[in-house]
Amino acid sequence: MAVVKLTRAWREFKGAARLGFGADINPNLPDNDIKYLSGLLNECLGSNGGVISSKARLVEIGRIYCGLTRRGKKRFFRLLADNFDFDMDNVNTRIHALQTVGNRNEEERVNAVSNLYESLISPRYRILKKFGILENGFKFLVDMRADLLDISKNDISLNIIERDLKLLLESMFDIGLLDMNEITWNSPAVILEKLIAYEAVHEISSWKDLKNRLDSDRKCFAFFHIKMVDEPLIFVEVALGNGIADNIQQLLNIDEPVVNPKDADTAIFYSISNAQKGLNGISLGNFLIKQVVTKVSSELKNIKTFATLSPVPGFTRWLKEKLGKEGAKIFLDAELKEIKKVKHHSDIPETLIKMIDQPYSDDSGLRVFSSAVMRLAAVYLTQAKKGKRALDPVAHFHFSNGASLERINWLANSSPKGMKESMGMMVNYLYDVSSIDENHEAYAGSGTIRFSKKVRDLLRCR
Amino acid sequence: MAVVKLTRAWREFKGAARLGFGADINPNLPDNDIKYLSGLLNECLGSNGGVISSKARLVEIGRIYCGLTRRGKKRFFRLLADNFDFDMDNVNTRIHALQTVGNRNEEERVNAVSNLYESLISPRYRILKKFGILENGFKFLVDMRADLLDISKNDISLNIIERDLKLLLESMFDIGLLDMNEITWNSPAVILEKLIAYEAVHEISSWKDLKNRLDSDRKCFAFFHIKMVDEPLIFVEVALGNGIADNIQQLLNIDEPVVNPKDADTAIFYSISNAQKGLNGISLGNFLIKQVVTKVSSELKNIKTFATLSPVPGFTRWLKEKLGKEGAKIFLDAELKEIKKVKHHSDIPETLIKMIDQPYSDDSGLRVFSSAVMRLAAVYLTQAKKGKRALDPVAHFHFSNGASLERINWLANSSPKGMKESMGMMVNYLYDVSSIDENHEAYAGSGTIRFSKKVRDLLRCR
Amino acid sequence: MAVVKLTRAWREFKGAARLGFGADINPNLPDNDIKYLSGLLNECLGSNGGVISSKARLVEIGRIYCGLTRRGKKRFFRLLADNFDFDMDNVNTRIHALQTVGNRNEEERVNAVSNLYESLISPRYRILKKFGILENGFKFLVDMRADLLDISKNDISLNIIERDLKLLLESMFDIGLLDMNEITWNSPAVILEKLIAYEAVHEISSWKDLKNRLDSDRKCFAFFHIKMVDEPLIFVEVALGNGIADNIQQLLNIDEPVVNPKDADTAIFYSISNAQKGLNGISLGNFLIKQVVTKVSSELKNIKTFATLSPVPGFTRWLKEKLGKEGAKIFLDAELKEIKKVKHHSDIPETLIKMIDQPYSDDSGLRVFSSAVMRLAAVYLTQAKKGKRALDPVAHFHFSNGASLERINWLANSSPKGMKESMGMMVNYLYDVSSIDENHEAYAGSGTIRFSKKVRDLLRCR
Amino acid sequence: MAVVKLTRAWREFKGAARLGFGADINPNLPDNDIKYLSGLLNECLGSNGGVISSKARLVEIGRIYCGLTRRGKKRFFRLLADNFDFDMDNVNTRIHALQTVGNRNEEERVNAVSNLYESLISPRYRILKKFGILENGFKFLVDMRADLLDISKNDISLNIIERDLKLLLESMFDIGLLDMNEITWNSPAVILEKLIAYEAVHEISSWKDLKNRLDSDRKCFAFFHIKMVDEPLIFVEVALGNGIADNIQQLLNIDEPVVNPKDADTAIFYSISNAQKGLNGISLGNFLIKQVVTKVSSELKNIKTFATLSPVPGFTRWLKEKLGKEGAKIFLDAELKEIKKVKHHSDIPETLIKMIDQPYSDDSGLRVFSSAVMRLAAVYLTQAKKGKRALDPVAHFHFSNGASLERINWLANSSPKGMKESMGMMVNYLYDVSSIDENHEAYAGSGTIRFSKKVRDLLRCR
Repeated sequence: MAVVKLTRAWREFKGAARLGFGADINPNLPDNDIKYLSGLLNECLGSNGGVISSKARLVEIGRIYCGLTRRGKKRFFRLLADNFDFDMDNVNTRIHALQTVGNRNEEERVNAVSNLYESLISPRYRILKKFGILENGFKFLVDMRADLLDISKNDISLNIIERDLKLLLESMFDIGLLDMNEITWNSPAVILEKLIAYEAVHEISSWKDLKNRLDSDRKCFAFFHIKMVDEPLIFVEVALGNGIADNIQQLLNIDEPVVNPKDADTAIFYSISNAQKGLNGISLGNFLIKQVVTKVSSELKNIKTFATLSPVPGFTRWLKEKLGKEGAKIFLDAELKEIKKVKHHSDIPETLIKMIDQPYSDDSGLRVFSSAVMRLAAVYLTQAKKGKRALDPVAHFHFSNGASLERINWLANSSPKGMKESMGMMVNYLYDVSSIDENHEAYAGSGTIRFSKKVRDLLRCR
Repeated sequence: MAVVKLTRAWREFKGAARLGFGADINPNLPDNDIKYLSGLLNECLGSNGGVISSKARLVEIGRIYCGLTRRGKKRFFRLLADNFDFDMDNVNTRIHALQTVGNRNEEERVNAVSNLYESLISPRYRILKKFGILENGFKFLVDMRADLLDISKNDISLNIIERDLKLLLESMFDIGLLDMNEITWNSPAVILEKLIAYEAVHEISSWKDLKNRLDSDRKCFAFFHIKMVDEPLIFVEVALGNGIADNIQQLLNIDEPVVNPKDADTAIFYSISNAQKGLNGISLGNFLIKQVVTKVSSELKNIKTFATLSPVPGFTRWLKEKLGKEGAKIFLDAELKEIKKVKHHSDIPETLIKMIDQPYSDDSGLRVFSSAVMRLAAVYLTQAKKGKRALDPVAHFHFSNGASLERINWLANSSPKGMKESMGMMVNYLYDVSSIDENHEAYAGSGTIRFSKKVRDLLRCR
Repeated sequence: MAVVKLTRAWREFKGAARLGFGADINPNLPDNDIKYLSGLLNECLGSNGGVISSKARLVEIGRIYCGLTRRGKKRFFRLLADNFDFDMDNVNTRIHALQTVGNRNEEERVNAVSNLYESLISPRYRILKKFGILENGFKFLVDMRADLLDISKNDISLNIIERDLKLLLESMFDIGLLDMNEITWNSPAVILEKLIAYEAVHEISSWKDLKNRLDSDRKCFAFFHIKMVDEPLIFVEVALGNGIADNIQQLLNIDEPVVNPKDADTAIFYSISNAQKGLNGISLGNFLIKQVVTKVSSELKNIKTFATLSPVPGFTRWLKEKLGKEGAKIFLDAELKEIKKVKHHSDIPETLIKMIDQPYSDDSGLRVFSSAVMRLAAVYLTQAKKGKRALDPVAHFHFSNGASLERINWLANSSPKGMKESMGMMVNYLYDVSSIDENHEAYAGSGTIRFSKKVRDLLRCR
Repeated sequence: MAVVKLTRAWREFKGAARLGFGADINPNLPDNDIKYLSGLLNECLGSNGGVISSKARLVEIGRIYCGLTRRGKKRFFRLLADNFDFDMDNVNTRIHALQTVGNRNEEERVNAVSNLYESLISPRYRILKKFGILENGFKFLVDMRADLLDISKNDISLNIIERDLKLLLESMFDIGLLDMNEITWNSPAVILEKLIAYEAVHEISSWKDLKNRLDSDRKCFAFFHIKMVDEPLIFVEVALGNGIADNIQQLLNIDEPVVNPKDADTAIFYSISNAQKGLNGISLGNFLIKQVVTKVSSELKNIKTFATLSPVPGFTRWLKEKLGKEGAKIFLDAELKEIKKVKHHSDIPETLIKMIDQPYSDDSGLRVFSSAVMRLAAVYLTQAKKGKRALDPVAHFHFSNGASLERINWLANSSPKGMKESMGMMVNYLYDVSSIDENHEAYAGSGTIRFSKKVRDLLRCR
């Protein structure tokens, strides 16, 4: 799955075969090889003093891991799960000790808590943590988790490792250890090629396209970890302009004239992409957006508005379900009347479902539904919930960050994907510094969603 | 105690008084102010989403802390100890949950363990961890621990926080996050002045003295943390030369001719100093020495020998105690005979004790004792133990690292301190790459100490 | 012709229209505008103290120049030629002064020489020199010379400026001011895209092709000027391998396995390209190759051989001419006999000329001629001269540098261009450090060309 | 005189004794060694192709030069003067050629001019220029000129070389090749120690004093040449504050409170020092001050006023001379009357001269003269001239730069030097961006000096 590239340093370390390492390993990791590997892992747990051989041992484990097939990796994880779990007897002993101490003696209580805490850190966690000392060790662990996420989907019993690896990576990629850097056309090609590879929202089609996205009226920022300098962790693409953009094709068009950044008043976040599969679920996007807002607004005092141009990935799925259940009742009378003027004889819900399933690249057929559908999008985004969370994942992300829903744009993304998932609509979420924290509290606390007057009008219209 | 310098960034953040921060605080932290602070700390524990005000809140807490007197700080720690401890009821609930799950269900067990683990992370730990996001946050926490170590000496009930802060710093200063950099006369003055300030073993008397220690036949290496770039964590000073040095004054003499590094065969570690009081007990020296050995030997193939020129800080204390208990019996007959030739009428043990207490800066009076005293030093270093550990702390450090005892040097440090603590003797510990790991294992396992033939001869002579 | 990109700094400077600058200028520079420009140029010659307005004036001139058409530029150069020439009356006066001083008085003689020297530096030289102070000023002058070289081809009277501009650039791009940097996949895209644009010998077809040329068994070095950091001046591409490469397609093949640099014994210079048209005739290639040899051989001790894989651009032209004049006499009897075995009835010279004019992409038709043609190539490279210079420009370049002719390779470049200009042959020039200087002296002094035994055998064979 | 430090690179190059270099040279350079050196210099003039041996030859010459005594250096310069001068016969031939061409043929004329120009560049110039290619070559030439300036003071016949070396350094240190960098406490010690060494105006007494001068309300800027990165060329020290400073001791006082740069409104240039004796007479100060004004005013919008706090080095000398010639007539009647109130019986001019010769460190005795002396200082600074130039060298420097005389400060420098050369007065020159160019033109053109109303009042008062 994920590819781990061992650097020269590792390969040459291995060369230190004088330590008895470098054996040929069957990539499916049969029992014999498991035994060898298990031995290495156990030695890692020994004293941590023998720096040199201990480093060589880690390199050897890394080398082996990188050569494994999917099947071999599964057996490797299995080994970690079964043989390097914490010792429940020990845990129980320490629980008992804690319970008998009570509050009698402060010092003893501290020790008892420490001891229990220690016993809950599994041996495999301790081993994996050591990889941080190797050049490329951080990348190795990130890619290992990418493998694990893929493999453990079908094997719930590996969750136990997943918990350890996530805990470890959360600590290793603590926000305090990250640097936010701007990426420009002056950045190394080795980093730029990763933008092309990882851009998840609106594909970068070529180096020329990339260069356009790094033009003087664009900005791109990424988090980097100091021990993974060639690897962006997450990056956001920003377009400077006047007014809040309402169409992604126009925004990405190479032939559009370049705006002088000093004349712009708005920054549009039009794409945010995780670049490391192995960091899934470790939330960095929120911090990134906030830091970009802070940085851009301090460098370009003229930028007053920060907003996104975002997809609505779950809308049509939700709409079809709703249409299936409630039929024409989802429309307001006025809307139905308008629609029937054009589509007199047809079954309106069915027609709409058909349009969703076989989308055009323009809105010719859809136009008659536009006011109804936009209202329904507003309903979907502000009222469709799963518990307190907005149902739409992108909406949930931005509402959690403290953004508000600013505007729903008709025919904002005419790509097949755009037409399919949201009938071409895109949405602007607004990051207003003065209300971000309050919005966040409201949403996190009670699920309250903030939206603009424009959206309110959409919801009210009848 | 430790001084925390808030950078401009912090001060200006505070300026954001529009958030209601920046109140005048009494530096002794009376009840009223404790209440305000307690409120801030509690808010930190709330949602972590409101990035901006949450950051401002941390800065506010930092600002307050930095203004406190020792008494105020004690009250601050008291507050953390009493009000931000973990919740034992919660811990007990989760213990119960874990015990009832048993091994029935893997997923539930993982959750139960996770839950228990989480409950053992105290609220104060969570709050302090957040400081990592601030510019200078790492330095802030390190200096806070320096304060705490000082204050908690007299107040055992603060150990509970000490445990949290140490745990946190261990994770934040994981060896995988450190960079080893060479320090030269080309390094920024802001770093060099810290060498002068922190050198613990052989004081640096002036910038001129420092420049001499960074001359072309000297090297200095330090660990830095990427988030504390102006602050060395620990540094080691190395002298290149021919043969293993046996005298520190000569080695530090500015007027000694400079050796061409390409003609040297030996690297002497003549000083290793912790630069951060707040990182006491978080072991970095071992890694530093090993990395220096690796680096120097790869850059200068001509350097074949790595050794220290180290003090023997505990020798005279031990010797006096032994003399007190055993008197003249500690000498061999041959030794006594030699000594008596010169000191016929005197009480030998008493004479020696007097010499220890009122040391000369030369060895004129001591000379007659030299063979006895050197043998006793060898005994002290190789046989005096506390459990499996060598009694002498410097010896213990190097033996733990895998070094062996190479040589004991008479009149190697004629400074008052040197004369006082070890009668002028210094010691070479040898770092021989091919046996480091083995030595380490032997010492860590069974307390076995490795030494050279020279030392063996000293021990055997009678 | 050459495009000058004014940076933001310039544009904004212009913004300082408060200085009365920024007028609309007709890009063909009619008389009216010439007058304005002439005024500006004259002001530049005034005192050099008014730094701020003087800088603004230069920016204004630069802005105007960059907006000109070819025709406008020609008028600009005309203006410099006619109105900013040195003053022959002044020169004559100073000649007279020098001649009357004689050797009477040393101090007066020095002054007289200085005065004459000064009078030979033209006003336009002094003006253009000032552009060095502007950001991008160096690039501006380089591009101006590119324009001038193009325009002056048809207008000999502009040579007078060409002399000044070349003199100026030679001084500004003195070898002592250049840095040789390695270019890797870690270099900024803004530099890498220039490799693609400027590669003159073997076109780089894509970013993927470029990445291959920067793989671990390849190296690329360029000269940079400190005031033109984004612009390589000249670059050379090197392939590491075993033995001297004899085929360019194979060498550039993306699918060839990568060699470990530590296992290679040879470095092949397979392309050297000037990146700045405006620096034509200012020789840098010689220095670049020597520095690369020094650098690579010090970093990779295993590389023992340095050679090129070079085109023979003038061969077929020379051969056709020779065939035209001398006909079949250019072949040795043995060669003719061999050829006639296959081509019995045909007119051999005519057949060969036809083959040159309509080359195949393989050597099927040529094969029968191969030994004759290779011998003739050896004759061409070692004996065809123009004065003491080798007729072939590439050969002349490498012989001047002190290289020797090592080998002639049959079917080494099957591209249309390669087949056309040298019937697919390429040549290796050897850079043997121990004889470079001597070879250079021999060639520079008496035009003596050094070649290998292999080439000697080719020449001798009959 | 100046010390040239050959770097490792040079020393090791020399090691390449296989080229026959490295002979022992007598540091006084007797005839025999002169001959060897002369041979080397002649070889330098040969072809420039043999890069490797040619570089070695330069290093050899450099090594020899650096080992010479003052006497040896004089002989070295003598050699350059006598044997490497240009060829007057050749010059005359080319003059003749130019004169016969006339204007007949443009191309021939260009060639004739070029040829004459070339013939006026001396062989020694060509040789010295080559040193630019060596690491440290730029510093070598700068230090050589420092030597030469010292030696040629007593030997006018060496002027001929001085002209060449100055010409060369002017071209090598063209303003377009310099970088202005800020120097802070974060700068390398190797640079900071040079500030201490070179500060010419107000001595830096210690590293602590230096640190104070680099505090947050101070700034220091220097020009650097890219090929002399560890060597500031010229630096200026700036103090930020409120209002124009009038006392240097106060300004340098370590115990003065630090001003927040964002609250300051004025930048005071209180010291500007050349750091390279060998660049004397090559004017850089003007550019440096202008660039600092530009930089500081763009970074700190709050700084509105730029002025100096400058010494008046020639005042007392001028005053004594004037007193000698004109006696009491130099005082206005009103002034005399005032003075006589205190010093009734004494010879006023004589009293003042005595005070100048035996200055106090306070103004107790002087006070009575203050209004007369301040008026005379205004006269000295604005009216005492040598041709169009202001007599006072510091005044001339700032007036040339376009500054105006803003204020004369009584008791502004109570150091012995300050009391002695200007009776404790210091002066503020104002750099007002909007009038700098105009002031400069007025002064450069007609010697017109601009001054403030305050100064005008001083001059007018009677």
